[in-house]
Amino acid sequence: MEESKENNPVDCEGASSSLSSGDIKSIKTYSMKPIAYLQSVFKEKNGTPRQSNTCSEFRGKITIGKDLFTNPEHSLEGLSQFSHIWIIFIFHQSGSNFTKAKIKPPRLNNKKVGVFSCRSPHRPNPVGLTLAKLESIEDSTIYVSGIDIIDGTPILDVKPYISDYDYPKIVNELGLADKNYVNEEAHTAEVHSADWIAQANNESLTVRFTLRALNDLETIQVEESNNLKKAIVEVLRNDPRSVYRRKQCCDRLYYFSFNQIHVTCWFDDDQAEVLKVKQVSN
Amino acid sequence: MEESKENNPVDCEGASSSLSSGDIKSIKTYSMKPIAYLQSVFKEKNGTPRQSNTCSEFRGKITIGKDLFTNPEHSLEGLSQFSHIWIIFIFHQSGSNFTKAKIKPPRLNNKKVGVFSCRSPHRPNPVGLTLAKLESIEDSTIYVSGIDIIDGTPILDVKPYISDYDYPKIVNELGLADKNYVNEEAHTAEVHSADWIAQANNESLTVRFTLRALNDLETIQVEESNNLKKAIVEVLRNDPRSVYRRKQCCDRLYYFSFNQIHVTCWFDDDQAEVLKVKQVSN
Repeated sequence: MEESKENNPVDCEGASSSLSSGDIKSIKTYSMKPIAYLQSVFKEKNGTPRQSNTCSEFRGKITIGKDLFTNPEHSLEGLSQFSHIWIIFIFHQSGSNFTKAKIKPPRLNNKKVGVFSCRSPHRPNPVGLTLAKLESIEDSTIYVSGIDIIDGTPILDVKPYISDYDYPKIVNELGLADKNYVNEEAHTAEVHSADWIAQANNESLTVRFTLRALNDLETIQVEESNNLKKAIVEVLRNDPRSVYRRKQCCDRLYYFSFNQIHVTCWFDDDQAEVLKVKQVSN
Repeated sequence: MEESKENNPVDCEGASSSLSSGDIKSIKTYSMKPIAYLQSVFKEKNGTPRQSNTCSEFRGKITIGKDLFTNPEHSLEGLSQFSHIWIIFIFHQSGSNFTKAKIKPPRLNNKKVGVFSCRSPHRPNPVGLTLAKLESIEDSTIYVSGIDIIDGTPILDVKPYISDYDYPKIVNELGLADKNYVNEEAHTAEVHSADWIAQANNESLTVRFTLRALNDLETIQVEESNNLKKAIVEVLRNDPRSVYRRKQCCDRLYYFSFNQIHVTCWFDDDQAEVLKVKQVSN
């Protein structure tokens, strides 16, 4: 049995009439309601990775609500057969409603790029896109890992990751996409990003722990404390600081927290050192 | 100089207050205005590929408007250094505002899956995601190829494709993502889609042309008529018909058009045959 409710979040009225009239100036708005709010180990912006990675400590869950479907678990049927999913979300903490055409991404040392040439949250429509590893589905809840988004983020949509669609294809001599991607070298040559991406990604920091911090880690009773250490390394090696913090506040301690863990560290030229790891209760 | 305008399309007011109150029931809506409308070779749904592919005939362009930025070309600065882009768009022709939890994708022979387990346009928020090859940038216009979306589609956002973020990573022994993806076999094992995807993708049709259709192709004065033939093959081999058309209307001719070309064909069990190709003027 199909079920649905009348309070559908979509309201597209007027848009197509504006389109068919060809009157681009009379742009209509599209109203969307989140299908869910992410529950994530990252409670605040500080320390939330800039893009998703596979550190399994970075867990989150998305529960499809009963306000969307009478039986929300039906909307996820079949999804567990995919290894990864796309999450399309709202950057709800990106601040002012004032978008600039060019911005300075945090890791580009004051270099400016067009807002559509980067993944900055400060964009005309504050829509984010991230790939997550699908861990499991229980009832109407999707458990994911390797996420880079903050607790409470409004989720607009979830879609399965399908290599055939989501991985740039090489075109063979017949002009048809080659499904086997046999020649990985050719592929790498055809698919490329701007130089600044590679440069920024190569500039990872060395992450160290003081003896005290290592002791802290040992006293924390978590299932796999080794994973906890890996998760901290993963956050810090990519330098989570804003440009402002890096340039103007380099003498200040840096704090971040996830999963009831509060971390204190400091940054030197090309390293981050963890000073204290503390377990906090809610 | 940074430029911006006050008529920013984003309106997120009220959303964060609803979040912080923890009152999931009082879900606020997010209003978005398209940043542009796609101009595509596909003028109607019939024959528009279901997902993007690399046939270079499937071209389109996205022009960032002056209603968004005083100098819209600034918003694309740096984008030409990427080979591919994500286009986040509105499924503006997906019909009724009535979303079902389970749907029947066209190529699954009546099998039902959850709406979040497939890429159907009929979803709670009608947001689409597609990967396109970036051909060039001129002023404030992005020229793309390999697209699967229809002329006039409202575009919400454009983001660069970045392999490090958008390609599922393998986790090495240290729990850190391996940037080199040396072992492609291991990767394929870790990244997987539901069985029905592979099955559907393998069921491609044989595409034939009658002598008359081949003659038609020769008389059409296009720059590269060979590319035109490839484009027709690419559309038909993936069976563009809806389930309804396949089951109920198998005795009817099938028409589609793109790029001022109108194609007439028919389908038999596992083949499509092109009967007529006609050039039309606007």
